[in-house]
Parts: sequence; C-alpha cells; structure tokens
Amino acid sequence: MKYNHKELLSYTTQLFMAMGCSNAHARVVADVLIAAELRGIPSHGLMRVKDYYQMVASGRINVNPKVSVVHQTPSTATVDGDNALGPIAGKESMMLAIEKAKVAGSGWVATRNSNHFGIAAFYSMMALDEDMIGIALTNANPLVAPTNSTDRLLGTNPIAVAIPADKQPPLVADFATTPIARGKLAIKAKQGLNVSHGLVQDKEGNPSTDPSTIEKGGAIVTLGGDIEHGGHKGYCLTALVDIFSSVFSGANFGPFVPPQVAYLPLLEKSVGKGLGHFFGAFRIDAFRPADEFKTSMDQWIETFRGAKPSNPNTKVLVPGDIERGNYEKNIVSGITILPQILNDLNSVARELDIPLLR
Amino acid sequence: MKYNHKELLSYTTQLFMAMGCSNAHARVVADVLIAAELRGIPSHGLMRVKDYYQMVASGRINVNPKVSVVHQTPSTATVDGDNALGPIAGKESMMLAIEKAKVAGSGWVATRNSNHFGIAAFYSMMALDEDMIGIALTNANPLVAPTNSTDRLLGTNPIAVAIPADKQPPLVADFATTPIARGKLAIKAKQGLNVSHGLVQDKEGNPSTDPSTIEKGGAIVTLGGDIEHGGHKGYCLTALVDIFSSVFSGANFGPFVPPQVAYLPLLEKSVGKGLGHFFGAFRIDAFRPADEFKTSMDQWIETFRGAKPSNPNTKVLVPGDIERGNYEKNIVSGITILPQILNDLNSVARELDIPLLR
Repeated sequence: MKYNHKELLSYTTQLFMAMGCSNAHARVVADVLIAAELRGIPSHGLMRVKDYYQMVASGRINVNPKVSVVHQTPSTATVDGDNALGPIAGKESMMLAIEKAKVAGSGWVATRNSNHFGIAAFYSMMALDEDMIGIALTNANPLVAPTNSTDRLLGTNPIAVAIPADKQPPLVADFATTPIARGKLAIKAKQGLNVSHGLVQDKEGNPSTDPSTIEKGGAIVTLGGDIEHGGHKGYCLTALVDIFSSVFSGANFGPFVPPQVAYLPLLEKSVGKGLGHFFGAFRIDAFRPADEFKTSMDQWIETFRGAKPSNPNTKVLVPGDIERGNYEKNIVSGITILPQILNDLNSVARELDIPLLR
Repeated sequence: MKYNHKELLSYTTQLFMAMGCSNAHARVVADVLIAAELRGIPSHGLMRVKDYYQMVASGRINVNPKVSVVHQTPSTATVDGDNALGPIAGKESMMLAIEKAKVAGSGWVATRNSNHFGIAAFYSMMALDEDMIGIALTNANPLVAPTNSTDRLLGTNPIAVAIPADKQPPLVADFATTPIARGKLAIKAKQGLNVSHGLVQDKEGNPSTDPSTIEKGGAIVTLGGDIEHGGHKGYCLTALVDIFSSVFSGANFGPFVPPQVAYLPLLEKSVGKGLGHFFGAFRIDAFRPADEFKTSMDQWIETFRGAKPSNPNTKVLVPGDIERGNYEKNIVSGITILPQILNDLNSVARELDIPLLR
C-alpha cells in the first residue's frame, strides 16, 4: 500500500501523542521516521514505531523529558537527553550545535542519556538549511567484534555528513561503519540463504557465512573484514564513533549500550547514562567565503559524478544520490508500506485506541 | 644499522638546513620524520628525505615559506602554507587549532597550499600535551577508484585521532582509509608475489591480484572492497577526508592533488592551491570535567584490551598499541635504517655537501 507522506506524518504524530508525548515532541519523532521512509531507508522508518512503543510501554523511555545542557564552552556542549526518545534528544542537540556554530564558526554537542535516534542523515541535513555542514554520529547496540576478538563490543555506529553545494544538490553521506547491517542478515536468514564470506564470524571468531551467527554467539566483522583487507582500520573507525558518542558525553560505551528493543533484558552493568550521540556543525563561511565554498563543492561533485564507470550500465555516484532519488520519487508518488509493517503499526494503534491506518 | 634517534634528529635537521630551511623549520621536518621512525612507520620516515629533497631541488617546494592565516572565526581558521614542506604548514596549523580550542573549546584549521606532511599521528598527538583530543586529516595523490569507477580520484587519505586517558596510555588511531598502501603493493611486486583478492582492480575495473596494476592503469579499491562488503562506505569515508582537506581550505581535491615526488610531472589542471590538510582539537573538558573524561577513557581502553581474543596467540589491541610498543623499543635501542634508505640519505648528503651518515 502507498501512502502520502503528509498523511503518514500526521498519523505517526497521533500515535506518539497517544503514547504520552507532547504534540511538538510527537511531531519530531514522526518527522525523523518519515524522513527515513522518504529517503528509502525503511529499516529506520515506521518499522521502528513498534519498538519505540514497546520501550515506552515498558517504562524504559521517558515521554516527558526535560532535555538539558549540562556543560558548555563557546563551541561545545553536552546535552542530557533525560532518557527521551532519540529523535527528541537528537534534534535539540543538533539545533544547539547549529546555534553554537552561528557564533563560534563551529558547534559540537555530545549527547548522553538518549535512545535510538533513527536515521542519522536527518540531523546532519538540518545544517543545510542554515548554510552549514552537518555531522551526526551515534553508538548502537553491540553486534560487532573488534579485530582479533570474539566479543561483541561495538555497534554498527553510523556517520552522517551533509555538505551544501550551489547548483548541485548537497552531498549527504550516511553510512554504518560496518560492512553489513543486522537487518540484512535477518532477511538472508528468512530466505534460507548464506551471506558472502567476509561479513560475519562465528562465536570462535572463524569466518562464517551463516546469517544467524549472531543468535549463536557470532558477530559482524569490522569494515574491511580481516587484517589483510584493512579490517583493523574499520575497527579504528567504529571505535572512534563509539568514543565520540559515549566517552565525550558520559553515555554508555560499546558493550554497555542499553538494548533498544523491549524484548531484550536490560544490562546488569552500566558505565554511563543511556545511549550516546555526537553532533557537529560548521558554517560554510568558517573557512572560505560561502560562494567560493559552494562553487568548489559543485566542482567536486561534478568531477566525481563525471568519472568513468567501470561498467556502462552503472553510474559513478556521489554519496546521497540514491537516497535523494528515492526522496524525489516518494514525495510525489507516496510511500510504500509493507503488509507486515502495517500490521505492526495497527497493533500499536489498537493498543493506544487510535483509528487504524487503512 | 641502528642509530640513536637524537643523532638522527640532529643529522636530518642539518640536511634540511642545507636545503635552505631555517634551523627552526628544519627541526620541525626532522621531528616529524623521526617520529615516524620511532613509531615503526618507516614508509613515512627517513625514506621521504630523498623525495622531499628532490621536490625542493626542482623548485616545487618553498623552503622559506610564510605560513599565514587567511580566514578565521572564533573556533575555525584557514591557513595558507605558502607551498611549504608539509610538516611546516602542518605543525603551525595544528598549533593554531590548539590555541583556538583553549578559548573556544574546540579549534579547526583547514590548510591549503601545502605538501606531503608525513605521519598524521604526529599532529593529532600534539594535542595530548595540552590535555586535548587531536585530529589530523590529509588528502594525497590519487590512487583509489571510487565505487563503480575505473578513474583514480582519491588518495589513501588518512585519519589520525589521539585521545588522552588517565592511567592508560592515550589511544592514537592513525589509519589510511583504504585497504592497502602503495608501498605494500611495491613490496609484493618486488617479491614477485600477487596480492589478495579485494585490494586492487585493473584498468577496466575488474578484480585483480596484480601488485603492479597501478602502473598499468588500475587502482586501489576503497575500504570494504566491493559493494557487497561495504566498499561504498569506504568510498564515503575517503571522499569526506578529501573534501575536509581540500574544499574546506581551497586546496586541490582528489585527482588534482599535485604529485609529491619530483619524477612525476606537474598536473596540467589545478582547482586550488597545493595539497590540503584538516586539523582539529577539543579540550577534554569541553564536554565533561577532565578527570571524568580520563577515567571513562581508561575504562573504555581496559574493556577493549580485556576482550576475549579469537586466538590465544593474539591480543585484542587498542588503536596505537603497536606503534607505542615500537616507540618504547626504538627510543631505547635505536632506529634501524635499511641499507637502501641509508644510501638514499647519503646521496642527498653528498649533493648538499654534508658529511655522510655512517
């Protein structure tokens, strides 16, 4: 079934209000989830409503949070999310990074005591409207083993960076720092298929092609895979995203990130508050006059998009091209919701006594 | 042959003074090159003296540069390196980032009109002495093809991040954002060996195991390799390092980065000034009280170092452990210089009329 995004925004807002969120907060959560649907990333879209609801219903998330600044300098701040839904803490933090950048040239906000914040690109793209470069990082539940280990100590910790151009659309990179997402493993498992070599390992740390390996004590490997293919560099990268999101803010790091689904038990040990994010903003005139920056960025984008493809049927893409294409299509022709997601949404609606989405 | 690092520092300083550098500038270049030797990264150590010398001798590098700040905000600045040796422009830029951070909480410097700056960790580690987190990025000569392309548009663009702890030594991540360095390909070629699958491609973009593929129009692939293994994420990462180092500062980006060896001709087209870097510094008390931050960082490091190894003969490492081990050994027992490097150094010494290193 296809739905107009405005209808979905309004419906999702209604659901979160019924969970106890204020109108303004509910709308922010809806904005972030629908942004993922529009950009063609359903794994971070309405599929999350049920998870968020169950976290709220089990009392693990605070729907009346007071998000507060607990520490600051002219260009930096730490925000305590008061155990809010991630999009609430995330959007307020990114707004603060932008405000700091207006005055100081750049702004950096580390956020603790938060939860799953949805699609990282949403926050980095907030900077574009202000003629700024936006950055958003988050840590996530541990599924990834560092190089040489069998322990799952890291999440799929994404990096999102949005950079404005002039005539060209902005470059928006938003990527998990691991070779595969858990969702893709689950799909392969349902199809009864193996995954390729170089993506996961078994619980002894041996290479595996079993998409269910995580349920059996295995792990996702770092970007690059083994050391010969630079997997230790992927480990560095994912570790840095974890540290910026947790040690900077005082959130839980790596293995102590609290589960973001209610069916997993809370962890016994905690080393900080909730899950953590990290946000940044640069004014584009922080380094060069804005028009020079934008012209140069156009030239970068045109050079890369104009590169020779290795196969005449493929194109050389600039980060964000695919998601922008999805957005342009979905904003006009509507968002497809799979039957299972619709069922989940309606099961939440029933519990909240809200009319079902038809 | 083994040499005491102080002897090498003094000798290298002498060489660069003989090339026309001031005493202070020559010492900075020597510091950066010897830092690489001490950390066990000879590819960025004295091996570069001959390259730097030939660049100077052919008039491609300015040995009397006036490094200047051309644009700034409270937390950001752009530095023009005046075509200096990279370490001169790099060190001045990082010092400025640190000064900005003292006042604004964070400091960010984009540097243009520079050259090869040696080991990135040197600059990020400058922040440690100030109780700051240090960041250093640079672009580099294009050897890497973006996803779906046969064109070499990106360098091995490294990221270095140094983070202080309390009882634990600092975490120092310094990694090329590509799966293999050009130097390692050259070694395999000399040995008559192939490289593993997933590291390079031929000039049509097909997977290759030929270590000489670059000379034949091939390219290094991005971290992750093919799309199935997340190579498009590696592309995003290397592209971001390029943009931060070039578009931010007004340096040449990607394919237009000027060659850093004199035997390669200058490029016909230029889109900016020289090669570019990007530096950052955060006060560790920018987000939390310094003692809390350091204790938390200790805990992070201890958690990762204490993780279960997949093989009883390996250890789970924290980024920088290997290089710190090399440093501790080399600072005591001296630095080994291979005969070929010694010959190269002495050929430079002869041309400069300096006593040879014995």
